[in-house]
Amino acid sequence: MDATPSSLADLSARETAARVAGNTLTAEAVVAAFAERIAAREPQVQAFAHFDRDRALAEALANAGGPLAGVTFGVKDVIDTVDMPTGYGSPVYDGYRPAWDAPIVALTRQLGGVVLGKTVSTEFAMSSPGKTRNPHNPAHTPGGSSSGSCAAVAAGMAQVAFGTQTAGSVVRPASFCGVVGYKPSFGTLNRAGVKPLSESLDHVGVITRDVRDAAFVTAALAERPALAEGAIAGPLRVGLFRTSRWDSAEPATRAALERTAAAIEAAGGTVRELPVPDSFERLYAWFDAVMGWETPHMLAYERRVLGARISPITLGFIETLAKATREQYDAALAALKHRDVLVEELLGGCDVLLTPAAPGEAPAGLGATGDPVFNKPWTLLHAPALSVPAGFGPNGLPVGVQVVGRIGEDAHTLAAAAFIEDALKATA
Amino acid sequence: MDATPSSLADLSARETAARVAGNTLTAEAVVAAFAERIAAREPQVQAFAHFDRDRALAEALANAGGPLAGVTFGVKDVIDTVDMPTGYGSPVYDGYRPAWDAPIVALTRQLGGVVLGKTVSTEFAMSSPGKTRNPHNPAHTPGGSSSGSCAAVAAGMAQVAFGTQTAGSVVRPASFCGVVGYKPSFGTLNRAGVKPLSESLDHVGVITRDVRDAAFVTAALAERPALAEGAIAGPLRVGLFRTSRWDSAEPATRAALERTAAAIEAAGGTVRELPVPDSFERLYAWFDAVMGWETPHMLAYERRVLGARISPITLGFIETLAKATREQYDAALAALKHRDVLVEELLGGCDVLLTPAAPGEAPAGLGATGDPVFNKPWTLLHAPALSVPAGFGPNGLPVGVQVVGRIGEDAHTLAAAAFIEDALKATA
Repeated sequence: MDATPSSLADLSARETAARVAGNTLTAEAVVAAFAERIAAREPQVQAFAHFDRDRALAEALANAGGPLAGVTFGVKDVIDTVDMPTGYGSPVYDGYRPAWDAPIVALTRQLGGVVLGKTVSTEFAMSSPGKTRNPHNPAHTPGGSSSGSCAAVAAGMAQVAFGTQTAGSVVRPASFCGVVGYKPSFGTLNRAGVKPLSESLDHVGVITRDVRDAAFVTAALAERPALAEGAIAGPLRVGLFRTSRWDSAEPATRAALERTAAAIEAAGGTVRELPVPDSFERLYAWFDAVMGWETPHMLAYERRVLGARISPITLGFIETLAKATREQYDAALAALKHRDVLVEELLGGCDVLLTPAAPGEAPAGLGATGDPVFNKPWTLLHAPALSVPAGFGPNGLPVGVQVVGRIGEDAHTLAAAAFIEDALKATA
Repeated sequence: MDATPSSLADLSARETAARVAGNTLTAEAVVAAFAERIAAREPQVQAFAHFDRDRALAEALANAGGPLAGVTFGVKDVIDTVDMPTGYGSPVYDGYRPAWDAPIVALTRQLGGVVLGKTVSTEFAMSSPGKTRNPHNPAHTPGGSSSGSCAAVAAGMAQVAFGTQTAGSVVRPASFCGVVGYKPSFGTLNRAGVKPLSESLDHVGVITRDVRDAAFVTAALAERPALAEGAIAGPLRVGLFRTSRWDSAEPATRAALERTAAAIEAAGGTVRELPVPDSFERLYAWFDAVMGWETPHMLAYERRVLGARISPITLGFIETLAKATREQYDAALAALKHRDVLVEELLGGCDVLLTPAAPGEAPAGLGATGDPVFNKPWTLLHAPALSVPAGFGPNGLPVGVQVVGRIGEDAHTLAAAAFIEDALKATA
């Protein structure tokens, strides 16, 4: 990013909150710095679906303090906001104004966070891309569906952005943009007022500049202080897990995992390769059955009434999904009844898994947003998963690695991810 | 109800669908008969938040057929509709028009069902009542929060109405109004686009004139034909379960349970009283912790921004709920991890439980909607539960009994409820 090192826009979320709480900084000054950054970077990156400088400054001026006082947020455009248009990434909903803020937005504001604007989503958080470009190279996709959220944070235009993940829409674009994308355990962040795709799979996640900011803001928003206080007792035990789709891992991703494993060991952790059980492939079939049944039903209105007006990519995606049968869906839900047992088996006694965040660097072009193949299993399993930046690939674009933990053990997973992030920085 | 016996508005949902499918009846004729019924009854009952005769007739004319062709629906006003205002039962949202139909509404229309109008809800489906009166006596509450849905069906003004239940908002008002209220197993009917109160507790349910109509429409809407095809093998085994709150059961409810038990036995079923474990009372504490944590968060925007404009009853309810702590909430969720085991233990090998649907007849007055004390445990446990009309109490108002089954065994539960309904009718 081309940030001026001395800009207030470069402060971490936790440093900003500490300074505002200590009265050495105002929310207005922070937002003014971000407005400047946005003016400089947005023409190229196009991360925002809506940004109104005056409105953002007014929101900062009205800030009543709180644990997130002065921290700047981008809100993915599939999340309802009462004072900004919510277009769900689709021209058919352009300019729509919901009647209420999604609880996650209301909670952000209640805690002193400042919403800068709405960030670009693919249409209905599916696969038809928006206008956003990868901040590291405008000829490449930022990934999706949380395209604008990841690009905004990567370009320094917000400290935090909300994303949503049904397949891989937080972790994958975060990997492509070189930022942290944290999809917490299912249910950690309130998802009401988010345009729904899947009752069983929809998660709200956060995109941040580093792991500790992800822990800091999620601890506040979930009212779980422990999330920011996780610690690793003894050497971190990491399981390298290649999944059953290792063929999809490009050299950039393979190299990132090797770098990360070496960095972990150099920092005193242990890495051992875990076997991929033959049964792992079932997770993909179950994922397809669950999303396949739920998503076309969630989009019943759009399919029935708006079909001719939504993009052919979205329609095609929905019709492909809709091949799932009720029997496949019921069988998948039954098989997923004890997700914690399935996750435990995969972790093989390790603290966390280290696994690809995406197939490789962000693909060239803006017509597609990349493949969530390495994200679907963990979304399906409701396990906490983060993309941690792990250097750059041969095209000079960022590559992340994915850290996956046990369901509900987000504090421990975040602490492990912070350890890995530190280890990578120490060897960079 | 004061229905003309020969009116098309008296046909069951399944008979209507069969006649429309057989081209011996049109959806327009059905809706015209309901418009007449509404004109006659609505001035007293006040079940509708919105009814526009011309719009309903136009919807019927545009009907393209399907398994629910011509079946008339009322939609609770906390469920989003794109072509009718959605006020969430609150003056603060009066006249709001969402951008999309809730999936359950879109699915209803896709299957040929006709939405007549929006039915009155308490504010945000909590406890501040709307204008609706009990069709059996306008000086009494219809119950809540699905007040208009139950009253509309009871007054013959719709064959089916959608309700929502977070504590007891389908089963209890159905009991008060003398209709069937069916809260399916958690997740059976799509709840997106419903103003949310609780991720863990919110259910969509249906209110109908009889159990077979509830099974018929739910089978279609959930795309689970088996729901309408349940059968009881051998004598029905019913467990009479008084709960730990039997002190709350008024004579009218006690008598209804006795009548029902006698009717079941007369019809060849068996009834035995099941012990109430000491641990049953924990369910109430867990319920309070779950709703207490989730609901104030779901209403974060309303609390923060609209507080001064929402009713004192609603605000007071939210603030009482908000006393729940994160620790209580986490403990409750952990204890509820295996709901199926908890339900199985309570059922004691029986097919279904027979338990109170409400404390008694609908209370006098319109200022409160009654107590969900007998509904909270089953909502919390995600078990299927129906109110089946079981005669009248000393005030001449209806009293229901509640039939509760195993999670996911809705077909069997519906079949048991239909058996009980038949048994009651045979002895009436």
